[in-house]
Amino acid sequence: MRAAIFGGTRSIGLGERPDPVIQEPTDAVVRVVLACVCGSDLWYYRGESPHAVGSIGHEFIGVVEETGTDVSAVSPGDLVVAPFIYSDMTCPHCRHGSTISCPVGGNFGNGIIDGGQGEAVRVPQAQGTLVRVPGTGHCDQTLRSLLTLSDVMATGHHAVVSAGVRPGDVVAVVGDGAVGLCAVLAARRIGASRIIALSRHPGRQAIAKEFGATDIVEARGDEATAAVMDLTDGIGADASLECAGTAQAIATAFAVARPGSTVGMVGVPHGEVPVPQAFFRNVGWRGGPAPARLYIPELLSDVLSGAINPGVVLDYETDLEHVGEAYAAMDERRAIKSLIRVGSV
Amino acid sequence: MRAAIFGGTRSIGLGERPDPVIQEPTDAVVRVVLACVCGSDLWYYRGESPHAVGSIGHEFIGVVEETGTDVSAVSPGDLVVAPFIYSDMTCPHCRHGSTISCPVGGNFGNGIIDGGQGEAVRVPQAQGTLVRVPGTGHCDQTLRSLLTLSDVMATGHHAVVSAGVRPGDVVAVVGDGAVGLCAVLAARRIGASRIIALSRHPGRQAIAKEFGATDIVEARGDEATAAVMDLTDGIGADASLECAGTAQAIATAFAVARPGSTVGMVGVPHGEVPVPQAFFRNVGWRGGPAPARLYIPELLSDVLSGAINPGVVLDYETDLEHVGEAYAAMDERRAIKSLIRVGSV
Repeated sequence: MRAAIFGGTRSIGLGERPDPVIQEPTDAVVRVVLACVCGSDLWYYRGESPHAVGSIGHEFIGVVEETGTDVSAVSPGDLVVAPFIYSDMTCPHCRHGSTISCPVGGNFGNGIIDGGQGEAVRVPQAQGTLVRVPGTGHCDQTLRSLLTLSDVMATGHHAVVSAGVRPGDVVAVVGDGAVGLCAVLAARRIGASRIIALSRHPGRQAIAKEFGATDIVEARGDEATAAVMDLTDGIGADASLECAGTAQAIATAFAVARPGSTVGMVGVPHGEVPVPQAFFRNVGWRGGPAPARLYIPELLSDVLSGAINPGVVLDYETDLEHVGEAYAAMDERRAIKSLIRVGSV
Repeated sequence: MRAAIFGGTRSIGLGERPDPVIQEPTDAVVRVVLACVCGSDLWYYRGESPHAVGSIGHEFIGVVEETGTDVSAVSPGDLVVAPFIYSDMTCPHCRHGSTISCPVGGNFGNGIIDGGQGEAVRVPQAQGTLVRVPGTGHCDQTLRSLLTLSDVMATGHHAVVSAGVRPGDVVAVVGDGAVGLCAVLAARRIGASRIIALSRHPGRQAIAKEFGATDIVEARGDEATAAVMDLTDGIGADASLECAGTAQAIATAFAVARPGSTVGMVGVPHGEVPVPQAFFRNVGWRGGPAPARLYIPELLSDVLSGAINPGVVLDYETDLEHVGEAYAAMDERRAIKSLIRVGSV
């Protein structure tokens, strides 16, 4: 089959991989319909994090082609959303909601396991992993939004859950990438009364507003902190969502969190957490890689009902043949997030 | 009046301070009955943290002598518990439960404001700060337990609240000082099904067991982690309580926390928090200085009913004249926590 092949720093292109087949009774084979490029894929692309040569991509929706004998939750022909990691959903960690720590779980597109950026994927632990999409004839915008449940929208939602956002809260969102924008949407969905988005890019500001941001702060660093404190009468935000992972974003997220609140951290931390300052203000932190599988059912309902439309973050599209362009567009910040059309439903 | 005077590293002794009087309508003057020495007082004693020359001590119970015109919650003659910081309980931070961040709040015994280790204290913001103890004729053990609500028992409880301990949880408590022991008691009070206390001192192990510890781990560092993982079938604790603040204790507390759980941090952090490892396991952290004022009413009910008896941690006692001994006993680890008898009810 045709699939994106990661070859090393700034080397990504169309290649060949063996057609996936059922290897274990817990497997399913899924034909990919839509895939996309994650912000974390860019680290590999830029050489900032290591990645094996081979398969890549962990966000996809597709149609089940074949299932192993232990898989009953999905059937051939089903449209399914795959979370960005596979897991059994029966082990103690999965039952506690920590799918990332499932002992038989793992990452799609890690060089060896099939990636979402390819024509098909062998999905291990398919019974626990895949979520069937009810209904038929979904429009393209719905499919794009379903695709975001694989990772980016689930991750924005994880920031909200981790920070313990409650209806009526004032929420600050640090980071205006696709995850930050989805965190704005997730905060609105939970019922935040005020959502302050930190963004200096007009295009991203527009999406933040469409998603529910009530205030935009264009400043950065200490000026951004001062602006948020000013907007909150010097109190700070009831919940601060760190969706970038840079040193400056982490510092800002902790600085604008009101005493006693929790920073929802979903940006992979590439900077220091200000531990003593946070401690003496009773500002905590929760977060990490999202247990997307856990969140997909409730978010899927809201996508299908039209309550949320996170697919808006996919503002660039191409096909498998031009997968390198999908990466370059994000790397050069011409795109918030790149969609790759692979097949049809 | 007579009061302990901090004079610099390893200099603590009985001295004279002006008799406290009402200075503001929000003040009360409290005659001290019992006081004690905090683990944090030892940092000043040892020269590890700076402290102004003058008053010291922030844990006390006493009897109200006089109140300012704005104080109606307590009256002369009332037995009261003082939390270790004063706060108005009406500002946004106090209403959110973050008394430590009250803009008109502050610390007792900071060199200038009267300390608990003295015959009397001018209590600023007395209306919000002081909690009246109902009833009369409380026995000495009850008074000792009430004294712990000032700080150490409230802090142990804060670890439990911060970590989100729920009935049935498996809890690991790192640190066998007075705070750690109180955290064991607080975890039992909430209904933890299993409480693993890390302690290598027989006397402290005995109190941990009396307080509800079901398992004692004597090892330290990686061996302690391995022992807790072994006791929890390789899963880790549902809640890990960091009650020491040393680098090793922090590392252990994060290592034994199961994925998706929260470390309740109440030891002032003197070491690195393992941020990336915690992030990738979705292990969060919440905590800081306890909002003791918030917790005193519910803990006080349990002390008066006999449900909890945290005063057991006060295993050494002396009087104001020998306050230096109270510090030395803790510094040399001859005492878990030193009680100072100042007056009578």
